[in-house]
Amino acid sequence: MTAIISEEQFDDLVIAIAKEESDFVKNMLENLHPEDVSAILYEIDTEGCIYVFQLLDLQFCADILVHLDEDVRKEFLKNFSAEEIAEWLNCMDSDDAADLLQNLPASRQEPILEYTDDEHAQHIEDLLTYEEGTAGAIMEKELIKANVDWQIKQAIDEIRLQAENVEKIYSLYVVDAHNKLLGRVSLKKMILAHDFVRIGDIFTDELVTVKTTDSDEYAAELMQKYDLEALPVVNIRGELVGRITIDDVVDIITDKAELERQLMSGLSEEVEEDDSILHLTRARLPWLIIGMFGGLVGAQFIGFFEADLALLPAMAFFIPLITATGGNVGIQSSSIVLQSLANKSSTIQYQENYSSRLFKVFVVAVLNGIVIGLTVFVFSYLIERNIRLSAVVAIALLSVVILASLMGTITPIILDKYNINPAVASGPFITTANDLLGLAVYFGTARWLY
Amino acid sequence: MTAIISEEQFDDLVIAIAKEESDFVKNMLENLHPEDVSAILYEIDTEGCIYVFQLLDLQFCADILVHLDEDVRKEFLKNFSAEEIAEWLNCMDSDDAADLLQNLPASRQEPILEYTDDEHAQHIEDLLTYEEGTAGAIMEKELIKANVDWQIKQAIDEIRLQAENVEKIYSLYVVDAHNKLLGRVSLKKMILAHDFVRIGDIFTDELVTVKTTDSDEYAAELMQKYDLEALPVVNIRGELVGRITIDDVVDIITDKAELERQLMSGLSEEVEEDDSILHLTRARLPWLIIGMFGGLVGAQFIGFFEADLALLPAMAFFIPLITATGGNVGIQSSSIVLQSLANKSSTIQYQENYSSRLFKVFVVAVLNGIVIGLTVFVFSYLIERNIRLSAVVAIALLSVVILASLMGTITPIILDKYNINPAVASGPFITTANDLLGLAVYFGTARWLY
Repeated sequence: MTAIISEEQFDDLVIAIAKEESDFVKNMLENLHPEDVSAILYEIDTEGCIYVFQLLDLQFCADILVHLDEDVRKEFLKNFSAEEIAEWLNCMDSDDAADLLQNLPASRQEPILEYTDDEHAQHIEDLLTYEEGTAGAIMEKELIKANVDWQIKQAIDEIRLQAENVEKIYSLYVVDAHNKLLGRVSLKKMILAHDFVRIGDIFTDELVTVKTTDSDEYAAELMQKYDLEALPVVNIRGELVGRITIDDVVDIITDKAELERQLMSGLSEEVEEDDSILHLTRARLPWLIIGMFGGLVGAQFIGFFEADLALLPAMAFFIPLITATGGNVGIQSSSIVLQSLANKSSTIQYQENYSSRLFKVFVVAVLNGIVIGLTVFVFSYLIERNIRLSAVVAIALLSVVILASLMGTITPIILDKYNINPAVASGPFITTANDLLGLAVYFGTARWLY
Repeated sequence: MTAIISEEQFDDLVIAIAKEESDFVKNMLENLHPEDVSAILYEIDTEGCIYVFQLLDLQFCADILVHLDEDVRKEFLKNFSAEEIAEWLNCMDSDDAADLLQNLPASRQEPILEYTDDEHAQHIEDLLTYEEGTAGAIMEKELIKANVDWQIKQAIDEIRLQAENVEKIYSLYVVDAHNKLLGRVSLKKMILAHDFVRIGDIFTDELVTVKTTDSDEYAAELMQKYDLEALPVVNIRGELVGRITIDDVVDIITDKAELERQLMSGLSEEVEEDDSILHLTRARLPWLIIGMFGGLVGAQFIGFFEADLALLPAMAFFIPLITATGGNVGIQSSSIVLQSLANKSSTIQYQENYSSRLFKVFVVAVLNGIVIGLTVFVFSYLIERNIRLSAVVAIALLSVVILASLMGTITPIILDKYNINPAVASGPFITTANDLLGLAVYFGTARWLY
């Protein structure tokens, strides 16, 4: 993987910006992709960035802004007037413009929209009305549509008219006189068709669509399943109101994976290494504190067996083994369920067969538990030479593996039913719960066998 | 999210297949997307599937095959001759065909290729030579290219000629007489251009490309970063040899996220809920056994303090608290590093500043550790009324939080340097290591303070 610019080039750029050598800076940056300029600006102070934005042309600045991190962008835009921001907004797709605006304080949104081109402002305001997490909120208004009665030539004229606004065209959407979506014509088909063919004669009505109120994850799922690069969005009356493009969906898929990792690792907020110390601490504390209280409850619990421990301190030796095994088994189990939930086929709608699922989990757990239980029985006997204690540890382990498997399987299913992200179940939640479960089983078995 | 067919419709289908009511079956399935038919076939027995494949036309069967799970497909294709399979292969894109073939035993590959169309077979064989995990291995040979000296009209004729083979066209790639890639013309631009414009006059040379030997993850990263729907692939001589399309990249991103979850949850193989019991057991055992040996080492370790435990059994109460906190902190830390590694900007190449990174981790850990340590100090004192023990627990916790943070941060960075997937560090590996670390710190502190 090669970097776009070397450290030396970057240093030269910083010096050139400080010296305001506009030709050098302009030349260097305009030869890069706006995405890369965004990445470079993170490393440059605010005055430097303002200087750069004054140098580059409107469209290029707009493209850079689109790729800046939201928080950075919000701060940065404080340095510019509503009029300046509106000029950049005019160069953006409606979805990117709405994203940018949504992130600014409400008091700034209105003056900016006043300076924005009328139709564009209308589109942006429209997009801002959709609830976050819906298909409506991630769609863009820019698309090419044609009436079913038009000829190809008219459609091409329409594309010519819209060419500046619609950056990427994959299909021509076909609508009737009431803007109801009927189908589409691929760009390939348009190129191959004669100018005077009626669109109604060549369009395909096999079309995957979403409603504005569908979830963005559902839209992403459809596009992934059917290998689509664009997905038209309709309102409840079936009228075409926008489209979702694949680049937005790629971001949704990535974000979803990141959120899952965050939940699985017990971070309570989205957090990155270069966030502030306060933010990092705040993201980590909640689950650490919950884990801590779990640990204190565990301490109370072991406390009931203080007399037993005084008689047989070797009981304590195996506590970490029991709790760790419970945690590991629980996380494995819930991860497998997460996988199932993620891949859940939406093709056939049928009743889940929970009992056979759980039975399978049980059998796998028994197999794993026997292997681990027997191994530990042998090794712990070699260490302690106390056959009864070894039996307690082995039986407790087997039970913990079975119980943790079942709990790790059931918890994410229940969470999912209640629309809570099931990845929470693969995090410290399951570890803490399984620690307590493990201790109960261990000391329970000990009482029973001694 | 609505299912494509209801349980009743599915039951009707199964009955119709059993009764060989070909019209009903054909009509129902051909009204679905091939992706959905693939999902339905999982629920139907092999004879039923064979019957379905005999009914549907070649292209539709090919599309179904592309979407079938690799293992299922391999089994299923055992029922067909090389000639039949070759006919489906002819209807597939070269990358899908190569995928299918690669998955079959070597002895079957050659006869199938013999029946495949010559040029297509050539393409497939070519693709099979690229190493897995490279851009070459995921590209397809189907693309539209035009000589820089052609006029638009010639290019459109070329598209017409290739229309059947190249399903999705986003750009026309522009090459010189030696097939060296010079740039591209978007399909939109082609529609708007006049027939007799020279391609050399309108193409853009601002083009992101990958080499066949680049990693597929790098290709995915580029496409995601620059919002591309297709990425041309060149060989070391700069000649255009194929293209990667966005749908393949979406799959790579999803697979990567799944692999990461699998590693983070201590599963040693890719595993799904409906895999066999043996497979599920085998995927789970390795890390459980490693965790078990960690637990046994821990038991040995606590064993050194048997005499102390006999005197003060309350020492044992806080063992789960110490180990759980270490585990939680370690996983949080390595998750944050994973996030950084995933988002690593490839724009500027500069030296990492490890010492300032670790210092920040240290400060965050001290803050978290103080909050947790103080809370535990108070609560454990309320439980045990032993101020010295509470001090031991609190100091041990603070130390464990700091050490586990540093270890959780350093381990993934080191693994990444040695090209091992750093997600391993967020799994049972770090939990097991931190359990031992925690025990050492706890009993060490106890010895020091008592």
